[in-house]
Amino acid sequence: MNQMTKTKVAIVGASGYSGEELVRLLLAHPHVELDAVTSRQNAGQTLAQVFPRFGNHPRARSLRFSEPKPEMLAKAAEIIFLALPHGVAAEYAPPLLKLGARVIDLSADFRLRCPAIYKEFYSHEHPSPDLLGQAVYGLPEVYRDRIKAASLVASPGCYPTSILLPTIPLIRSGLVKSTGIIADSLSGVSGAGRKAELDYLFVECNESVRPYGVPKHRHLSEIEQELSLAVGTSVTIQFTPHLIPVNRGILTTLYLAPEKHFGDPKVMNELGQEVSACYQSAYGKEPFVRLLDSDVLPDTKNVVGTNVIEIAWRLDPRTGRLLVMSAEDNLVKGASGQAVQSMNIMCGFPETAGLV
Amino acid sequence: MNQMTKTKVAIVGASGYSGEELVRLLLAHPHVELDAVTSRQNAGQTLAQVFPRFGNHPRARSLRFSEPKPEMLAKAAEIIFLALPHGVAAEYAPPLLKLGARVIDLSADFRLRCPAIYKEFYSHEHPSPDLLGQAVYGLPEVYRDRIKAASLVASPGCYPTSILLPTIPLIRSGLVKSTGIIADSLSGVSGAGRKAELDYLFVECNESVRPYGVPKHRHLSEIEQELSLAVGTSVTIQFTPHLIPVNRGILTTLYLAPEKHFGDPKVMNELGQEVSACYQSAYGKEPFVRLLDSDVLPDTKNVVGTNVIEIAWRLDPRTGRLLVMSAEDNLVKGASGQAVQSMNIMCGFPETAGLV
Amino acid sequence: MNQMTKTKVAIVGASGYSGEELVRLLLAHPHVELDAVTSRQNAGQTLAQVFPRFGNHPRARSLRFSEPKPEMLAKAAEIIFLALPHGVAAEYAPPLLKLGARVIDLSADFRLRCPAIYKEFYSHEHPSPDLLGQAVYGLPEVYRDRIKAASLVASPGCYPTSILLPTIPLIRSGLVKSTGIIADSLSGVSGAGRKAELDYLFVECNESVRPYGVPKHRHLSEIEQELSLAVGTSVTIQFTPHLIPVNRGILTTLYLAPEKHFGDPKVMNELGQEVSACYQSAYGKEPFVRLLDSDVLPDTKNVVGTNVIEIAWRLDPRTGRLLVMSAEDNLVKGASGQAVQSMNIMCGFPETAGLV
Amino acid sequence: MNQMTKTKVAIVGASGYSGEELVRLLLAHPHVELDAVTSRQNAGQTLAQVFPRFGNHPRARSLRFSEPKPEMLAKAAEIIFLALPHGVAAEYAPPLLKLGARVIDLSADFRLRCPAIYKEFYSHEHPSPDLLGQAVYGLPEVYRDRIKAASLVASPGCYPTSILLPTIPLIRSGLVKSTGIIADSLSGVSGAGRKAELDYLFVECNESVRPYGVPKHRHLSEIEQELSLAVGTSVTIQFTPHLIPVNRGILTTLYLAPEKHFGDPKVMNELGQEVSACYQSAYGKEPFVRLLDSDVLPDTKNVVGTNVIEIAWRLDPRTGRLLVMSAEDNLVKGASGQAVQSMNIMCGFPETAGLV
Repeated sequence: MNQMTKTKVAIVGASGYSGEELVRLLLAHPHVELDAVTSRQNAGQTLAQVFPRFGNHPRARSLRFSEPKPEMLAKAAEIIFLALPHGVAAEYAPPLLKLGARVIDLSADFRLRCPAIYKEFYSHEHPSPDLLGQAVYGLPEVYRDRIKAASLVASPGCYPTSILLPTIPLIRSGLVKSTGIIADSLSGVSGAGRKAELDYLFVECNESVRPYGVPKHRHLSEIEQELSLAVGTSVTIQFTPHLIPVNRGILTTLYLAPEKHFGDPKVMNELGQEVSACYQSAYGKEPFVRLLDSDVLPDTKNVVGTNVIEIAWRLDPRTGRLLVMSAEDNLVKGASGQAVQSMNIMCGFPETAGLV
Repeated sequence: MNQMTKTKVAIVGASGYSGEELVRLLLAHPHVELDAVTSRQNAGQTLAQVFPRFGNHPRARSLRFSEPKPEMLAKAAEIIFLALPHGVAAEYAPPLLKLGARVIDLSADFRLRCPAIYKEFYSHEHPSPDLLGQAVYGLPEVYRDRIKAASLVASPGCYPTSILLPTIPLIRSGLVKSTGIIADSLSGVSGAGRKAELDYLFVECNESVRPYGVPKHRHLSEIEQELSLAVGTSVTIQFTPHLIPVNRGILTTLYLAPEKHFGDPKVMNELGQEVSACYQSAYGKEPFVRLLDSDVLPDTKNVVGTNVIEIAWRLDPRTGRLLVMSAEDNLVKGASGQAVQSMNIMCGFPETAGLV
Repeated sequence: MNQMTKTKVAIVGASGYSGEELVRLLLAHPHVELDAVTSRQNAGQTLAQVFPRFGNHPRARSLRFSEPKPEMLAKAAEIIFLALPHGVAAEYAPPLLKLGARVIDLSADFRLRCPAIYKEFYSHEHPSPDLLGQAVYGLPEVYRDRIKAASLVASPGCYPTSILLPTIPLIRSGLVKSTGIIADSLSGVSGAGRKAELDYLFVECNESVRPYGVPKHRHLSEIEQELSLAVGTSVTIQFTPHLIPVNRGILTTLYLAPEKHFGDPKVMNELGQEVSACYQSAYGKEPFVRLLDSDVLPDTKNVVGTNVIEIAWRLDPRTGRLLVMSAEDNLVKGASGQAVQSMNIMCGFPETAGLV
Repeated sequence: MNQMTKTKVAIVGASGYSGEELVRLLLAHPHVELDAVTSRQNAGQTLAQVFPRFGNHPRARSLRFSEPKPEMLAKAAEIIFLALPHGVAAEYAPPLLKLGARVIDLSADFRLRCPAIYKEFYSHEHPSPDLLGQAVYGLPEVYRDRIKAASLVASPGCYPTSILLPTIPLIRSGLVKSTGIIADSLSGVSGAGRKAELDYLFVECNESVRPYGVPKHRHLSEIEQELSLAVGTSVTIQFTPHLIPVNRGILTTLYLAPEKHFGDPKVMNELGQEVSACYQSAYGKEPFVRLLDSDVLPDTKNVVGTNVIEIAWRLDPRTGRLLVMSAEDNLVKGASGQAVQSMNIMCGFPETAGLV
């Protein structure tokens, strides 16, 4: 590995929380060089000025935010991350793709295959519907092969990641029904983005716990799309997000109905082995999925700052349900870490490069 | 109201969080006088020494913790609160009752009617099974009349309160099924009590979210008992508690199945009116139940420090479910405030005395 | 006390944190009736709609926010609280005073006696300099007599209260020098107000500790004015505020130089008795000052929600300094509670009415 | 770099917070292999079992905690970290040193040169006073050369690091007096260690701010020793630690007296340049000291998880003082990161290896 040439990358919209997390990951990545970061409001300032925490990194002291201009970006970088608000990303992707860049979009703009569903959930027409078919949903554990060759990756949302990874193997294998699924999720406040709104002030969030977006949160659209694709029939789920006073982390509790009745201890034991085998087969070799031992439950503090999702499950013989719980860092596995994981796949780097 | 004679009360085990909250409420109560507080470890110290926050209250500067002796207590007080660990309360209640005191127990010891279920969930024989029939479950909105004359009130648990109050009117009215109920609850750390255990250290709880006690938490026993009594058939529910980094507060999200299918907007509208009317009828005049307007969701920060439980609901036409969400302060409506509410009823005080 | 007529009060600008705290205190106050609350942005909504936590209070369900109109306010209320941003309060006070209302202003607008110092610290000319002489600095423990007859009370800032109360008796008595004083203060985030600014987002404050406003914070102007008045010579102090992740509370640590050298244990003992006697004499009978016992230190959690300031002190024979530490709730003793205390004095109510 | 042979290292007492942080750093370190971890209470369990967050690291899944036996440890590792309580470390160091291991001790046991001062501050005789002369105080920015050849490194305390690094260059250069120094420090709760004590429960720390250890905290002993060594005369300082509700981070505010009077703006400007030059000269090339630009102040959130200490300063012409503020992660630069930095120096690795 003499003389490694680093791949040049850029971030459009690097001043939000997932943009900042991308900066952190890409500055430390062994195989890439961060060559451009854009932000209208911070144009002209160095990364170190905007994010003092990177102040000891030489690149952060020299690299300045610029205005987001597609030509410049496509010249500067092979891989371009879009960390923009929903709706804005869809304007930047087409020119960048035309100019030959490969794009990893962290917004919701290219996650849905169907423009009508986009309109239903995001309340406006999709600005580039023709690109929807081309985009690959960037969930490596499910779409690794397609990501390899993708020119446009739609990196999944934080809630969807926490729900899809635990659910897909179980419904694909037929162990649980694809109907009646309930996902109850708890998210840290960074999930709301770096927005100056009263609702997200310290005093409004600290010592507060609250549901929101009930009963039809936007992320349902991509969750149901991917579950439907996994089983080949239309899936509708119940999803309740809650805001809790931590900076980072999503804890999801899933209520699932096994196909098998397991009141009988023997049947329960068998079913347990099948669930265990199902997860082992799906994720036993996945570097970023941690299947917990039988006496441990997920805890967001054990995944914060990492690209790992923790998964544990319990059969409840009293109710006949299978409970599955997952924990992830909403800004890493739920956003920027997963985007870097996709980049690693696209560029042929080791999939864990820069993520451990 | 010339010459009001105050009722004398005592607290056995006043050094935990619900004991401290009882002290706070009773010191400020207009119709009672706190005449004895006991605590083995703090015996000899004044209330003000053990709880500096009460240091400006004259009574707190003079009243000293004593060893818990039934004779002394029964002499000192008409109403005696037990804020003791599960299992210990059952030892103190019988002698106090014999000596003529009326007892309000905040532990789980007298909440279950059936000794076998007690043993199933608490793993030891009930020490005073004969008292189980005599105890009244201290949920005023349900058992107000029985509480009036009770000599032994078993004040409900924090989770049960947050689940029973929103659920009972709906299943009683037949609007929702009593099967398939799921309660997903989030609790502040004071719910774990003032115990020197690693799991509840600041560093272990802060920036952490985690489920626990899955799938068979002890509180299930009283929740299912009371739901079963409400509908007259045996009810089994799913209950998942989570620990979240706030001092106080429980947020419960309930997943319920209406009897009616409401895909049709007209039927949904009707059902909505029925749910609304059901809650209005049950709680429209209750001083401590806040039925939220249609555009507001519960938030623990709006109930902390108060005896109020907030309730809101949403019909989800996509899944056919009714979601009900509640918020309460686990130490007030979930423990000490509710116990004082029972005392007010027992003593003929205005029910809101000392609680607003 | 048959037939108590309640005094009518109003709050101008009731939608910030200190306005909300005033609402809480005044709704529960036994001798006043809250007859008007104003807020441009919330005009037309009830108190209960804007602050769900007051939703069970009948007055909060009926009283609606109105536009702030002096005539209406002066008609509606005898006592009018201004909980407005600095600079705005000075516009509202003159017409209200002319119309005969008594005004308690929680902003900094009338705290300084000298317009030039106002300009130095607040960067603009004072809009009503003629009123500065008339205003009484609303620190009851110091200016109780003048507050009684005041028509315009300038309620002190949160930091100044936490510094002045511990310092004034010591410098007045000559026990410590009025030179070289250092005040190092830690404030909860509500001190920054309910403002939609990035700096006060949950994620920016949680897991963060930071100094700000160094070395010349605006509150220095009133702190130094009051210390100078206490000793009769010009006093300059060092003051460093820090932002810490709690909702409420200010903890101040003061570094003071006793006049006496006390390397000798006997001298130290004597000095200790003098300090103790000085505080006892100043505050031994004050209902809202808690002088802590010799083995206890202040803790904001013991004063949050109350109008109490805790004070403790230590002599350090190694350095010859006297350390004094205080804790208060920045929104109660540091703002709204103290304003209500002034109102009680102005109206001849018991000074603790509505505050215990 | 073919065939890099990794240096073998061990941790004695790896179950506390600084032990866990050492595990994190050493598992990811490019030049070392973690070959033994000891813990009485966890003996037999793997690192992954005790610390679920390391569960995806192969070494953490295979390496088991063992009983702490010197022979085994000295055989297993060249460098042995002691992350033990004060007093216990002094028992383990002598046999390990005799067996030829190099020891980096994170406790206070070998930080003081004088056994009498140890006894004064730690209340018992030093168990191995003969080793005190041999130990090197592990502050790389000050003792880099001695650390290189050391067999016993006494890694500094968290508070001392946050005070010594900002102060030493200034007093050495004579720019500020070595008398009258005040250090006011705010520490996250992990500084108290992983101890099951009521004082550090979530509910006791959250929404609480409090001073402690006033006025003679143990860390004064090493702070004053090192300041005295820096200037060649005995230095006594004032030090006030406070506990604040964050997991990690220390923010220190230092009050210093410049030798020069600088009421005159020109003199102030000159002095500012001298301070700036002094810090540049001391730390301009230090990889782990971040000298902040003139408009930025330290914030613990910008250093958490890193080995960096941030330093900023302000001259106050009103008081004639120089204020210096620093921020560090108490578990990294204040403990385990600094210990790894010393190890890098001892082993000839790049000083930043495993720390960026």
